[in-house]
Amino acid sequence: MSSSFGTMFKTTTFGESHGAGVGAVVDGCPAGVEISRDEIQAQLDRRRPGQSRLTTPRQEGDQIEILSGLEMGLTLGSPIALMVRNRNQKPGDYSNMANIPRPSHADYSYRMKYGINSRSGGGRASARETLARVAAGSVAEQFLRSAFGVEIIAWVSRIGAVEISLSESEIDGLSRPDIDATPVRCPDPEKADLMILAIEKAAAEKDSLGGVISCVCRQVPAGWGEPVFAKLDAVLAYAMISIPAAKGFALGSGFKSVTMTGSTHNDCFVKDGDRLKTRTNFSGGVQGGISNGQAINFSVAFKPVPTIGKAQKTADYDGCEVILEGKGRHDPCVLPRAVPIVEAMAALTLADMALQQRCAHL
Amino acid sequence: MSSSFGTMFKTTTFGESHGAGVGAVVDGCPAGVEISRDEIQAQLDRRRPGQSRLTTPRQEGDQIEILSGLEMGLTLGSPIALMVRNRNQKPGDYSNMANIPRPSHADYSYRMKYGINSRSGGGRASARETLARVAAGSVAEQFLRSAFGVEIIAWVSRIGAVEISLSESEIDGLSRPDIDATPVRCPDPEKADLMILAIEKAAAEKDSLGGVISCVCRQVPAGWGEPVFAKLDAVLAYAMISIPAAKGFALGSGFKSVTMTGSTHNDCFVKDGDRLKTRTNFSGGVQGGISNGQAINFSVAFKPVPTIGKAQKTADYDGCEVILEGKGRHDPCVLPRAVPIVEAMAALTLADMALQQRCAHL
Amino acid sequence: MSSSFGTMFKTTTFGESHGAGVGAVVDGCPAGVEISRDEIQAQLDRRRPGQSRLTTPRQEGDQIEILSGLEMGLTLGSPIALMVRNRNQKPGDYSNMANIPRPSHADYSYRMKYGINSRSGGGRASARETLARVAAGSVAEQFLRSAFGVEIIAWVSRIGAVEISLSESEIDGLSRPDIDATPVRCPDPEKADLMILAIEKAAAEKDSLGGVISCVCRQVPAGWGEPVFAKLDAVLAYAMISIPAAKGFALGSGFKSVTMTGSTHNDCFVKDGDRLKTRTNFSGGVQGGISNGQAINFSVAFKPVPTIGKAQKTADYDGCEVILEGKGRHDPCVLPRAVPIVEAMAALTLADMALQQRCAHL
Amino acid sequence: MSSSFGTMFKTTTFGESHGAGVGAVVDGCPAGVEISRDEIQAQLDRRRPGQSRLTTPRQEGDQIEILSGLEMGLTLGSPIALMVRNRNQKPGDYSNMANIPRPSHADYSYRMKYGINSRSGGGRASARETLARVAAGSVAEQFLRSAFGVEIIAWVSRIGAVEISLSESEIDGLSRPDIDATPVRCPDPEKADLMILAIEKAAAEKDSLGGVISCVCRQVPAGWGEPVFAKLDAVLAYAMISIPAAKGFALGSGFKSVTMTGSTHNDCFVKDGDRLKTRTNFSGGVQGGISNGQAINFSVAFKPVPTIGKAQKTADYDGCEVILEGKGRHDPCVLPRAVPIVEAMAALTLADMALQQRCAHL
Repeated sequence: MSSSFGTMFKTTTFGESHGAGVGAVVDGCPAGVEISRDEIQAQLDRRRPGQSRLTTPRQEGDQIEILSGLEMGLTLGSPIALMVRNRNQKPGDYSNMANIPRPSHADYSYRMKYGINSRSGGGRASARETLARVAAGSVAEQFLRSAFGVEIIAWVSRIGAVEISLSESEIDGLSRPDIDATPVRCPDPEKADLMILAIEKAAAEKDSLGGVISCVCRQVPAGWGEPVFAKLDAVLAYAMISIPAAKGFALGSGFKSVTMTGSTHNDCFVKDGDRLKTRTNFSGGVQGGISNGQAINFSVAFKPVPTIGKAQKTADYDGCEVILEGKGRHDPCVLPRAVPIVEAMAALTLADMALQQRCAHL
Repeated sequence: MSSSFGTMFKTTTFGESHGAGVGAVVDGCPAGVEISRDEIQAQLDRRRPGQSRLTTPRQEGDQIEILSGLEMGLTLGSPIALMVRNRNQKPGDYSNMANIPRPSHADYSYRMKYGINSRSGGGRASARETLARVAAGSVAEQFLRSAFGVEIIAWVSRIGAVEISLSESEIDGLSRPDIDATPVRCPDPEKADLMILAIEKAAAEKDSLGGVISCVCRQVPAGWGEPVFAKLDAVLAYAMISIPAAKGFALGSGFKSVTMTGSTHNDCFVKDGDRLKTRTNFSGGVQGGISNGQAINFSVAFKPVPTIGKAQKTADYDGCEVILEGKGRHDPCVLPRAVPIVEAMAALTLADMALQQRCAHL
Repeated sequence: MSSSFGTMFKTTTFGESHGAGVGAVVDGCPAGVEISRDEIQAQLDRRRPGQSRLTTPRQEGDQIEILSGLEMGLTLGSPIALMVRNRNQKPGDYSNMANIPRPSHADYSYRMKYGINSRSGGGRASARETLARVAAGSVAEQFLRSAFGVEIIAWVSRIGAVEISLSESEIDGLSRPDIDATPVRCPDPEKADLMILAIEKAAAEKDSLGGVISCVCRQVPAGWGEPVFAKLDAVLAYAMISIPAAKGFALGSGFKSVTMTGSTHNDCFVKDGDRLKTRTNFSGGVQGGISNGQAINFSVAFKPVPTIGKAQKTADYDGCEVILEGKGRHDPCVLPRAVPIVEAMAALTLADMALQQRCAHL
Repeated sequence: MSSSFGTMFKTTTFGESHGAGVGAVVDGCPAGVEISRDEIQAQLDRRRPGQSRLTTPRQEGDQIEILSGLEMGLTLGSPIALMVRNRNQKPGDYSNMANIPRPSHADYSYRMKYGINSRSGGGRASARETLARVAAGSVAEQFLRSAFGVEIIAWVSRIGAVEISLSESEIDGLSRPDIDATPVRCPDPEKADLMILAIEKAAAEKDSLGGVISCVCRQVPAGWGEPVFAKLDAVLAYAMISIPAAKGFALGSGFKSVTMTGSTHNDCFVKDGDRLKTRTNFSGGVQGGISNGQAINFSVAFKPVPTIGKAQKTADYDGCEVILEGKGRHDPCVLPRAVPIVEAMAALTLADMALQQRCAHL
């Protein structure tokens, strides 16, 4: 527990990286939603390793299989089971690690939790589990778009020391093709080149880099999010920090808000047709935990991936000092591939909030 | 929905700022735990307004009432209902805001959510709701201490531009009396003076300041936290961002991790008696979402409080431009009072994880 | 755990029979519902002991207090906290039972569960906890009536050997005043007299009687109930068997269905305006776990209350044989007072299903 | 929603009768439990159609596939995904029913719920969904047996008018081979013959029969079950009534309790080693919603299956009168095949309660 996410739009994931496959059961998607298998596959392909020289050469070629919940391309209201079979398993690559907990990885804490040591390299803490999130998230996204016109766009805004800064209007104009135009999924081509250089340098040193992914959710109606605990921003934080390697979450102005005063940070209202909008959006589209109709934007910090080829002095389970050199094929930087994962978790959050809002008033 | 937090150690809060009172029902606290009413009250007193010149002069004098769940000072296993009666209600103070949604406050988004406009100034989005969290959190903390020796200490690490930085050994030595030694709850007395000056300056300008609260949880056994979604750090992020005015969450190295490489960021293992520990703790005590036995540490960014006396140009619900000058008695900076709230939410998170871990293996 | 009932319309109860009071927090009632305090009180009065010579002479005089969630008589969307203070506590009445687990009561199993022995006579297993259900159920009922016109009517259909049988059209015509016209809440006055005689005879023998309560829910729209587990009838069964002393649940034809064949039991369809209805209603208004628009009807069997004055040969906690003669003031038959409890649990079930149905299709 | 059952030992099922397959994800099974695939398969085989002339001749030959959660035959603590592929699909058999809601089946209520009409014959309301329950239930049963020695045995105690009655000591001696000795799974061979005759007569008339399944759970420790709502008996009732065609639930004395008085119905205590036991067990092993260490026994009434070959006068969706003659291959009586389903749901209930009990005291 708990492998489930959501209250009314609930996703349960299953599968180990070295077992038969990974998958998700999406329970609570309303009936009558048109779901495109191709669109799910497209998001999986964006998460796939081996898309460019920046990512591991493994060619997983993950194909999504829809086991239930659809008929003639429409949701039935019943659970939608999605699965990707595992292929190309090479557990041997991990064999020298059998008695060594990898630093900053989940090996040690899992063993302490479950009292057993899974032989296979990774189990549930593997990035491969995120396949299931991406597939389920695509279902959520398709529901949100057809029901509300919601758009969710994430991009790499920082790799190591290279950072971009976009204005609100630049963010308003972003599309997924813009993001995918560079292999690092950074919409600023010049900064993207610098990011690529930084990643290649890290790869050459058998080291790894972290970074920041930013995300905007557009056309979210005002009123989504539940007081007191299940606030929209709180659930987004939960969703994002649950992604492997995530270390920080910031909504709107985030940590920069602490350098401002109330009078400069407050988002004052102005008339907008028969509603109100805010002149600025430091709040990131959420006030009191509830969407206010402005664009929802947030950022997620990812640490440098812990599995590196560079030699590390650490200890095995018996406490003996060892030198560990990772031999598996791993990305020097997961950020580009994590973009669809951030989008997926945002979609799963919003879909649940959208349904809960249906119960808000008489 | 959802006013509940937790799966096995579950807290439900209730109450509006201007109704009969606020309270919490804690369901799932194991039987046989000694609970001190005085300790709950002590944490409430730390949250109370009017403790110093830095906070609003309201003297709420909130007294905790334990309605159920205890007998002879021991928990029965049944729900523990806790309540604080409201006093000193002056709804009139908010009357000029009746038709004006306060900028960066929840008025507008609540109205959009519920389709009604609560007459009273604040409702559930009020900081007063956090009383219930602090009371419930104290129960959780007492359970955690008696069952595991867990210690939870939070402090103000930044106000506006004034920031402190503590070494791991300095953090190891912190106690609540250290924190409470300065009115801003910053353990560095010199920086505390600067923070006080900054808050007084903001107050004089009828403005407000934000800041950062840091927290350490000691003696948390390895193994707490649930893959895949309910990771310990993910639930902490959820808990923290659910606190009013929180805008960012960072575990361990947080956003700073992105400036490091895998080889410098990885926490390598060394022998520690018959277990392992890590040489560094950039992970903040959590790996793969599960505690690894090291100190858990994290930070939460709080925006400057939106309710200020300074004139703001905004719009009323009809879209007409208005000049708003808040007249209520509000803190220029909530950080010092939010310290026990952060501790409470950390305790509620850990108590739930502690119970879930009881189900992890045969 | 778990003191909560419901997913979207969620009620959490608290309170011991001999503590400060008992109460409920209703979270998830939509905003904008008109709630009458008097109507809640009226249902509590129907549950109250001492209404007639058939029930215990205790005059609890329980007054409902609404602590939160309402403003100007309308729900705010926030949790509705309801409480009844305990009065007239006479824990001494139970003192001779301190070391004797009462037969067929919860004393022994509670002690085995919690590893402690609550000093007070009853704790959470007390019938007094049902006060909280009735109060919360009245809120649910008021929501259901104002939103859908749903009517819920329960009555005593059997006491000991005395049983009534009503035709579907007689059931259609029942109202609460009809039910309350006899002190046993049996709508057949002649059978009611026989029931009263039976109860008086049991009382004279310091013994107790059980019986059956039947219930009909009218105007429930088709489509409520969730496959696969949270079927409307399954949740009703859960709700009913959670009532103290309930031993059996039957929907529609219930156990009598086993004497019929498919061809006689099937409810065939006929045209009904622009919808369909069924010619018979052996299904009790639920098919495949989902309401079909017909009246929902079910029955609940209650055992004879275990607390009796008659001497019983049993054992104390040490295993020593003892003769136990209950001295507390207890009803010889709880059925008449349990009628509003059955109604309350039906209302809580239906309110949750009503909200969940809002999420069923696009 | 909700296709999940359980809080800590949580099962989510998926799959339509005419899609790719049906399956379950079991989340929360503790790590380190030995799970036998053969034992899961054996229970599936007992549920399988075509075991004898009494059941439909379809040879589903369902083979269980374990997709995740096990390594070397031991649970990992991660979700256990189980799946059975659909074969032998003949949707055409149902084609003449496309516009006719089958009486007492879920067709009409599903259409009213979801606003769509699933083309395929059955969807989630199909008995085939119970495959997933049986597979998940076997996992739960294996956990319960290895951790506590719990035994769960169900049998057919009534078909139509033919009923058996077993003494407590006869029940104590029952084993699964005893049950499976007759094709109707009735442990009384003479009554079994009468039941077979009754079923054959119904089949000859293209009609169907209902009946009662009884179940005993042995070696359940005292203390399982949660006050106030999630009582062990209440959750059992929920679990059982969620099985297709179930119409009634009775714990212990059940509906017969109403014919007794408190003094005859109470289960008095006697010494049993260093614990207590009860002299009788009218309570069915549960008091105050919590197991008391005695055998848990209960019964479930199943209506005659609604799908029959006999002509029925009913209406199509347009309200036009039609004569419906079912042509699919369906059992005249599902009771024998429902025995492992009852066992599975009992196991899922008890496994969840076993885990929750781990959190009951300090």
